[in-house]
Amino acid sequence: MSYTILGICGSLRAQSSNKQLLLEAGKVLAPAHHFEWADLSDIPFYNPDISEKPAAVERLLAQFANADGFVFGCTEYNYSIAPALKNALDWASRAPNNALLAGKAVALMGAGGGMGTSRAQYHLRQVGVYLDLHFVNKPEIFVNAFGPSFSDGQLVDDKVKQLISQQMQALIELIRTCKK
Amino acid sequence: MSYTILGICGSLRAQSSNKQLLLEAGKVLAPAHHFEWADLSDIPFYNPDISEKPAAVERLLAQFANADGFVFGCTEYNYSIAPALKNALDWASRAPNNALLAGKAVALMGAGGGMGTSRAQYHLRQVGVYLDLHFVNKPEIFVNAFGPSFSDGQLVDDKVKQLISQQMQALIELIRTCKK
Amino acid sequence: MSYTILGICGSLRAQSSNKQLLLEAGKVLAPAHHFEWADLSDIPFYNPDISEKPAAVERLLAQFANADGFVFGCTEYNYSIAPALKNALDWASRAPNNALLAGKAVALMGAGGGMGTSRAQYHLRQVGVYLDLHFVNKPEIFVNAFGPSFSDGQLVDDKVKQLISQQMQALIELIRTCKK
Amino acid sequence: MSYTILGICGSLRAQSSNKQLLLEAGKVLAPAHHFEWADLSDIPFYNPDISEKPAAVERLLAQFANADGFVFGCTEYNYSIAPALKNALDWASRAPNNALLAGKAVALMGAGGGMGTSRAQYHLRQVGVYLDLHFVNKPEIFVNAFGPSFSDGQLVDDKVKQLISQQMQALIELIRTCKK
Repeated sequence: MSYTILGICGSLRAQSSNKQLLLEAGKVLAPAHHFEWADLSDIPFYNPDISEKPAAVERLLAQFANADGFVFGCTEYNYSIAPALKNALDWASRAPNNALLAGKAVALMGAGGGMGTSRAQYHLRQVGVYLDLHFVNKPEIFVNAFGPSFSDGQLVDDKVKQLISQQMQALIELIRTCKK
Repeated sequence: MSYTILGICGSLRAQSSNKQLLLEAGKVLAPAHHFEWADLSDIPFYNPDISEKPAAVERLLAQFANADGFVFGCTEYNYSIAPALKNALDWASRAPNNALLAGKAVALMGAGGGMGTSRAQYHLRQVGVYLDLHFVNKPEIFVNAFGPSFSDGQLVDDKVKQLISQQMQALIELIRTCKK
Repeated sequence: MSYTILGICGSLRAQSSNKQLLLEAGKVLAPAHHFEWADLSDIPFYNPDISEKPAAVERLLAQFANADGFVFGCTEYNYSIAPALKNALDWASRAPNNALLAGKAVALMGAGGGMGTSRAQYHLRQVGVYLDLHFVNKPEIFVNAFGPSFSDGQLVDDKVKQLISQQMQALIELIRTCKK
Repeated sequence: MSYTILGICGSLRAQSSNKQLLLEAGKVLAPAHHFEWADLSDIPFYNPDISEKPAAVERLLAQFANADGFVFGCTEYNYSIAPALKNALDWASRAPNNALLAGKAVALMGAGGGMGTSRAQYHLRQVGVYLDLHFVNKPEIFVNAFGPSFSDGQLVDDKVKQLISQQMQALIELIRTCKK
């Protein structure tokens, strides 16, 4: 069974280390599965006063609806979730599509300071309770963005790559389970 | 001693119930203190690639720098902080002004579903550890936005107004303490 | 398929309102499934220096191992988990049985102050990431222990009873899913 | 001004690495201030049915009442607070002394797995909102208990010792501020 996995990065930075992690996840998943990127660069802040959803939001919601599972590159700012990622999820829970994500599977990974975005990842798991998401529990992936795991902006750490491979396997199994 | 208090609302909605709470806070503070609003409507998502800060961000940072204390109307989306508010704080922690908020005092209030934004408020308190903010502990203010506390979009609950009054008094005391 | 569900109450109080919730859960589950109680009254604090596990702990661990799923009556003290419940889980994660709970399903419910133990429940969900537990996302059950849901210490709220019934159904489905 | 600081360790283990951190804190504080230990070994689980407080609990509460500030060695089990420490705080918030800790200052430190007990420390900060505690924000102290910071069970890491020294200085300042 081939699944569509949507990768979403919390950072809008071109050279984001979290994007590097997601790139590796995409490599691991292909060619058995289809890995897509969500482009958050033109998604505005969610505002209930906006009665008609902008085209970029409609495109994102279509990707959410179509995806079998998700990988979030959980950039951490100030001990919590990067707003661009949180905002994408907020759009996805808006009526009439407020159960767009319900019952779907998610893998979390992140590169950041010493704690490897763990603080933001636990906040994101709480967000997932409301959205009715199911998260891969293990392995958790916390990478130090400023250590030797990256060289010239590229992920070069085989141990991290192996963790990503294990986590993607766990994600595929969780998607299978969620679909039963 | 007269202080400048900056009010920031997580919701961009014109008729936000959180704005109503902040309006009441501003009334309570005046005329002994100066209450200002932060306008987040044109603040872009924080992006480290933006080398020159937009004018709206510079204006917001100047307000942050000038404020003696803060009141956050902590809108909750999906069990966590509204991105517009989180994003404002993320801009405020960017070099070279990354200690812009350090040592300052904050009061939190929120109107939302049954839990009155409590889930978002606890996340925001964790954000404050990194930013070195000092929060008023008591009273906490959790208002049901869909109950009788509001009528025609206006705050009409005297008990909530009294809580806001007590909290603003606690905020002023905390500012005084933080400045010593 | 008939499952064994272990009910664990965070409060050691005889008349605990959380026990009332669990009693209702047990009623709903019977006779299709087997509902058991964990007795925490003689479980000592986990201490790595205790080389031989006390008999009460061995009995508890046998119940953990035998259970197909769990219902936690998540008493909240001081905005977090009641120590008796947390301590039971800490014993369950000790070598050589540190994966005793891995992959099992849990339903959370609680009665407490105004927030209905929600703060403790979100902490417990974070504990579950390490233990590799899978939690029912919806419905969440937050009951005001001091309101009309209880009369003479008995649960008398039909709406809460219905939520418990829905949650137990969701738990049975989640157990089924986890076992696949 | 000389203060009394109460050190409380979440682990009951004799050779606890968290006790080593607290020992260092005590060394740093002396002789300008008085550092005391709380003995949790015979504190029973809090149970509202216990109408008369055991002698060990009375002794602990007297220490709480007498202390000007606290240092918590925040042992982490399963991504949250060690029950022995949480339980000590739960006893301290019981009527008629439920404001026993209100307005007092706390420093947090911990040694554990890769995240250095950070997950437990953030939970403990939430507990502190209810108890009306004021926490030192910076420096935070997260030590890897299984790395080179310890040798033969002793803290040998000068960088950690320096952090503890800075944090104790921040604690004394915070106590001074809280008392104003």
